[in-house]
Amino acid sequence: MKPIRFDKDGLVPAIVQDANSKTVLTLAYMNEESLQKTMETKETWFYSRSRQQLWHKGETSGNTQHVVDVRYDCDQDAVLVLVEPKGPACHTGAYSCFSQSLTGSTSKVEGDRFQILNDLEETIAK
Amino acid sequence: MKPIRFDKDGLVPAIVQDANSKTVLTLAYMNEESLQKTMETKETWFYSRSRQQLWHKGETSGNTQHVVDVRYDCDQDAVLVLVEPKGPACHTGAYSCFSQSLTGSTSKVEGDRFQILNDLEETIAK
Repeated sequence: MKPIRFDKDGLVPAIVQDANSKTVLTLAYMNEESLQKTMETKETWFYSRSRQQLWHKGETSGNTQHVVDVRYDCDQDAVLVLVEPKGPACHTGAYSCFSQSLTGSTSKVEGDRFQILNDLEETIAK
Repeated sequence: MKPIRFDKDGLVPAIVQDANSKTVLTLAYMNEESLQKTMETKETWFYSRSRQQLWHKGETSGNTQHVVDVRYDCDQDAVLVLVEPKGPACHTGAYSCFSQSLTGSTSKVEGDRFQILNDLEETIAK
């Protein structure tokens, strides 16, 4: 992973964004191995800082994330992973991990705004 | 900032997203003071890890970011700041800091997809 600058713990923050709805789903961390696996398998792999091990998103839940693109920022110390999620990103079952507001705004995080199109596509495919 | 869990360096990663186009602009870091100032002034303030000081985005360039909402994630260790940017987010002059792809995809990061609507609004307001 030539251009990426991992921090002193060997990690880089990875923003996961829905490629279609553009909703930010999760902030997680990758080490070099998980970024490599993400590129190779086209599914998201992270490094769990609490469990100190690789983590294949959706391995047990089935809620994998198909990787459409991996971008990096101007100082090469953050990545942006554009995905098509197979299910909720959050362990709470929510579509996005960012479901609460500090401003006390009552607007809920929208679900996938384009889910209806995916549903329609699946229905047509049947 | 009750619910936010700052790390051992007193920082939390802050994803900055355009509230209208939904493009992810920057990943930066906030300490408690910069988050407080962000909430109070409704403009983004960060903590520069290299310069070890507060940093008011756009203070010199004029490219401030009006804060629409500040969200936080399920484990309270990342924030998502939804903004209306007054200009480019990146020090390179690019609309977003995430302008390069690891996948070698040639698709450029789109500019603000809704800029034309802002321009139209300004024109009408004249």
